[in-house]
Amino acid sequence: MKKILIANRGEIALRIMRSAREMGIKTVAVYSEADREALHVRYADEAICIGPAASSQSYLLGEKIIEACKITGAEAIHPGYGFLSENASFARLVKASGLILIGPTPEAMEIMGNKLSAKAAALKYQIPMVPGTEEAITDVSEAKLRAVEVGFPILIKAAAGGGGKGMRVVEQVSDFEEQMQLAVSEATSAFGDGSVFIERYVSSPRHIEIQVLGDTHGNIVHLFERDCSVQRRHQKVIEEAPSSVLTGAIREKMGKCAVDVARSVNYVGAGTVEFILDENLDFFFLEMNTRLQVEHPVTEMITGLDLVKEQIKIARGEKLSYRQEDLHINGHAMELRVYAEDPENNFLPDIGVLETYKTPKGNGVRVDDGFEQGMEIPIYYDPMIAKLITYGKTREEAMDRMIRAIDEYHITGIKTTLAFGKFVMQHEAFRSGNFNTHFVSKHFNPERLKEEDPDEALMAALAGAMFYKKATALVNAQLQTEQVSNWKRNRTNYN
Amino acid sequence: MKKILIANRGEIALRIMRSAREMGIKTVAVYSEADREALHVRYADEAICIGPAASSQSYLLGEKIIEACKITGAEAIHPGYGFLSENASFARLVKASGLILIGPTPEAMEIMGNKLSAKAAALKYQIPMVPGTEEAITDVSEAKLRAVEVGFPILIKAAAGGGGKGMRVVEQVSDFEEQMQLAVSEATSAFGDGSVFIERYVSSPRHIEIQVLGDTHGNIVHLFERDCSVQRRHQKVIEEAPSSVLTGAIREKMGKCAVDVARSVNYVGAGTVEFILDENLDFFFLEMNTRLQVEHPVTEMITGLDLVKEQIKIARGEKLSYRQEDLHINGHAMELRVYAEDPENNFLPDIGVLETYKTPKGNGVRVDDGFEQGMEIPIYYDPMIAKLITYGKTREEAMDRMIRAIDEYHITGIKTTLAFGKFVMQHEAFRSGNFNTHFVSKHFNPERLKEEDPDEALMAALAGAMFYKKATALVNAQLQTEQVSNWKRNRTNYN
Repeated sequence: MKKILIANRGEIALRIMRSAREMGIKTVAVYSEADREALHVRYADEAICIGPAASSQSYLLGEKIIEACKITGAEAIHPGYGFLSENASFARLVKASGLILIGPTPEAMEIMGNKLSAKAAALKYQIPMVPGTEEAITDVSEAKLRAVEVGFPILIKAAAGGGGKGMRVVEQVSDFEEQMQLAVSEATSAFGDGSVFIERYVSSPRHIEIQVLGDTHGNIVHLFERDCSVQRRHQKVIEEAPSSVLTGAIREKMGKCAVDVARSVNYVGAGTVEFILDENLDFFFLEMNTRLQVEHPVTEMITGLDLVKEQIKIARGEKLSYRQEDLHINGHAMELRVYAEDPENNFLPDIGVLETYKTPKGNGVRVDDGFEQGMEIPIYYDPMIAKLITYGKTREEAMDRMIRAIDEYHITGIKTTLAFGKFVMQHEAFRSGNFNTHFVSKHFNPERLKEEDPDEALMAALAGAMFYKKATALVNAQLQTEQVSNWKRNRTNYN
Repeated sequence: MKKILIANRGEIALRIMRSAREMGIKTVAVYSEADREALHVRYADEAICIGPAASSQSYLLGEKIIEACKITGAEAIHPGYGFLSENASFARLVKASGLILIGPTPEAMEIMGNKLSAKAAALKYQIPMVPGTEEAITDVSEAKLRAVEVGFPILIKAAAGGGGKGMRVVEQVSDFEEQMQLAVSEATSAFGDGSVFIERYVSSPRHIEIQVLGDTHGNIVHLFERDCSVQRRHQKVIEEAPSSVLTGAIREKMGKCAVDVARSVNYVGAGTVEFILDENLDFFFLEMNTRLQVEHPVTEMITGLDLVKEQIKIARGEKLSYRQEDLHINGHAMELRVYAEDPENNFLPDIGVLETYKTPKGNGVRVDDGFEQGMEIPIYYDPMIAKLITYGKTREEAMDRMIRAIDEYHITGIKTTLAFGKFVMQHEAFRSGNFNTHFVSKHFNPERLKEEDPDEALMAALAGAMFYKKATALVNAQLQTEQVSNWKRNRTNYN
C-alpha cells in the first residue's frame, strides 16, 4: 500500500495523513470548493477537487472518490468519520472497483447500522440489553402495550436514528400516544423510516464505549473504555479514558462483551461498542459504530497505540501484534471538542473567521485541528474547530492540564466551547466523577461563563499600575512590571 | 507555596510556568530589556524587568532576582538551566534571604561543580571512573609521566571546564607537551584556573546520563537513562530515552551507580549523573549536573512524570510518591534541539527574525518553544528556538514521527538544525543504533542537506501540471489537482 486517499476533511483528514506519512505512505486529499485553502489539502501529497461546497455534491459522492483514486493511483481509501464512513453501499463500490476500504466489511456496517439487526447479532452472545422491544413497531396501540410491559419511564427511539432525532422520553402512560406520534413523524422525516422501538429509560446514565480492533485473521481485542457522558444536545463534547467510575472487574466484563459484539459480525478494523451504564454499574448494549470515532485520541494516549496505523496495518492484512493480555491502561486522558458554538446560546453553531488562533503547547497537550489563524469555519460542515487532548499520570493531572491548555488556547472572532470546557473541568461533580449524561442540563449555567467580570479585570489593571509604582520606588529604574499585558491576555481568553 | 519566580527565559521559563499553573501556583517572570516582548513575560502572572540585554547585567544578577521576589511576594525561585542554576553562592543567597530555591543544596552544587571534588565524592561508593589522574595538575613534566601511566590515547581536561573548552585529545606521547600547554592556557583564559587532569581517551564513546530525583527525606530514585550521543561542537543536539544500546542489567547497574553518586552529596531535587559508555558497554562516571537538563522531556515522555512538578513537590518538603520498583519505561522518546544555527556552515549561530514559524502537531508530538512568528532570536543568549520531542511505542515510531514532525515544522528567515535532525533520523547508523559521539564528524556531510534538488522540485511541478491535464480530461470539470501547492510547501521546508 503506497498511496491512500482520505475521503474526508478537517482535523480527521490531517490526523490520518500524519499517520500515513509516518508509515511512508503517500496521501491524496479530496476537497470541496469551500475547502480549497484547507490545511488537509496543503498537507496531502496530492489533492483533487471533487465538487461544490455542499457535502451531498462532494464528500458524500462515492463515485467521485473512486474516480479520484483511479486518477491518482491511490490503492486504498480511509473514510475518517461521518460522510461515507459507515455507508455499506460505498464499501461495496470500493471493493467492486478493486480498491481497499480502510474499514470494516459492508456486511458488518449493514448489520450494525440498523439498531434491530445490531441487537439481534449481539443477542447471539447474551450481551445485556436495556429491557424493551426486540422488533421495530409502527402501530401506536401495540407500542403502548409493550411500553406498559417494560415499565415507565420509557424511551422511544427511531430504529434508523442517531443524534437524538426521533427520540422521546415518556414519564407516564398517559403521555405515551402523543409522544409516540411525534417520534414517528420525526423519524419519518429525518430517516425516511418511521419505525421505532421502546425501551426502559435509564434516568442517570453514563455513556461508556469500548474501542475494539479486529484483524483479518479472526483476532479481536479491546482497548478499554472511553467515558463520553458529558454531552450537549445528545452529542458528546468531553470524553475521557479510562472512565472514573468503572471497576477493574466491570471493565473486563464490558471489554469481553464488546469483543463478543464485534465477533458477532466477524468485525475487521477499528470499531466502537457503545454501552449505557446505570447507577448500579449495570451496563446495556446501545450500538456499535463501525468507524474511527472522533474521540479515539484518548484511547491512543492511554495505550500508546496509533489507531490509524492499526487500521492501515489491518487493511494490509497484517495480524494484530499484541494479545489482549499485552494491553494495559497507562495514565489518564481528556478530550474537549472545540466547537464553533456559543455555549451561552444553547450551543448554537457560530460562524466567522478565526481572527486570533493560537494553540496551547507543552507537556501532555495534543491539539488535533484543521484550521489556522485567518481561516473561516465553513458553514457547510460540522462546526468542530479542533480537539484538545490532555494526558496526565492521574485523572486530576489530566484535568488540571486541560484547564491550563484552555487558558493558553486563544481564539477570537468565533465563539467556542473552550470556556465551557473549563467550566466542566472545574466543576465539583465532574472532578469527583459523580456525573452522568445530564451533566449539562443539571449543572451548566451559561451565566457562569461571564464570571470573569470586566470590573475585576479593570481592578487587576489598576493593581498592576500601583504595583508598577511600588516596584519603581523600591528598586532601581530597571525594575518594571508588566502585569497589565497579562491582564490583556486573560481578557482575550474569554472572548 | 503560592507564587514562584522563574529566574530564566525562553522555552524553559515557559515550560516551568506551565507546570506551576497546572499546580495552581502563580508565576513571576523576570526579563532583560531584550526580552520585553518574550512569550515567558506574557505567560507569567507578573513580570519584572531586571536589566539590560547582557545576561551579566540581568539574568546572572542574583541580587536583582532576590529583589524581584521581595517585590512580588514570590516565595520560591526556579532557576531553570544555565544562568544561576548551578551557582552555589546564589543558592546560599536565596536561603539567606528566607526564600526557597527549587534545586539542590549549595553544598551539593559546590561538590559536583568541581570535577575533582565530584570524583572524590563518587569514589566513596566505588563508582567506575575513567582511568586517570585523581588530582589536578599544572606541571607539564609531571603530567607527561602520568599520561604514560594511563596509556595513550589520553584526554587532557580542564578541572573547572565544560563545553569542550580546555579539552585536548592526545594520540601519542610526542604530541603531549604542546597539547598540554594549549589546554592549560585555554583553561586559564576561560575559567581563570589552568589546572587539568588526564584520563584514558575512550575512542567510541556513548554519552549516557541517568536522571535522579531525591527528596528531603533521604529517598533517591533514578528515572532511567537518556542517550545524548549525537553532539555537534561537543554539545548535545539529539537526545533519546531509553538508549538503544543498554541491556536491562547494565541499565540497573548504571541506575544504582547514579543513585549512589546522588547519595554521596545527600542530593535533593532533580539531577543528572553523566556517564561515558565504551564499546564493551563498560561505563565510567563523568560528572553530575545539579539542575534540570535541557533534555528532561524525553524522560517525562517515557515515565509519565512531570519533572518540574516533582521538583516543586520536593521543594515543598513532600516525599517522593513512588519507589524505584514502581517506575517503568513506557515507549520511546526523541528530542531534537532546534537551534538557530547553520548546519551547512559548521553549526554557526544564525540570527534574524522568524518570518515563518509554524510548529508541528498531532499524536506523539511535543514542542517546547519560546517564540512566535515575527519574533527575533536575540543574539545575547543561547540560540535555541525550540525542543521538538516525539514519542512512540517503539524507537522506530519515535524516529518516523520525528521525521514527520520536522517536515511539518516551517521556519523561514533563520537557518536551523531541523534538516540536520531529519538527516540523522534517516541515517542508517542512527536508525540501527550503531553510533557514538563522533556521529557528526563521521557521518554528517552538509552537502546532503541540499539533496532536495531545485530541479527535482521543478520536475514535480511539471508533473503536477501534466497531472492536472490528465485529471481534467478524464473526469468532469470539478476534478482539479493542486499538486503544485504541495510542491511549494515542500520547498518551504528546506529553506
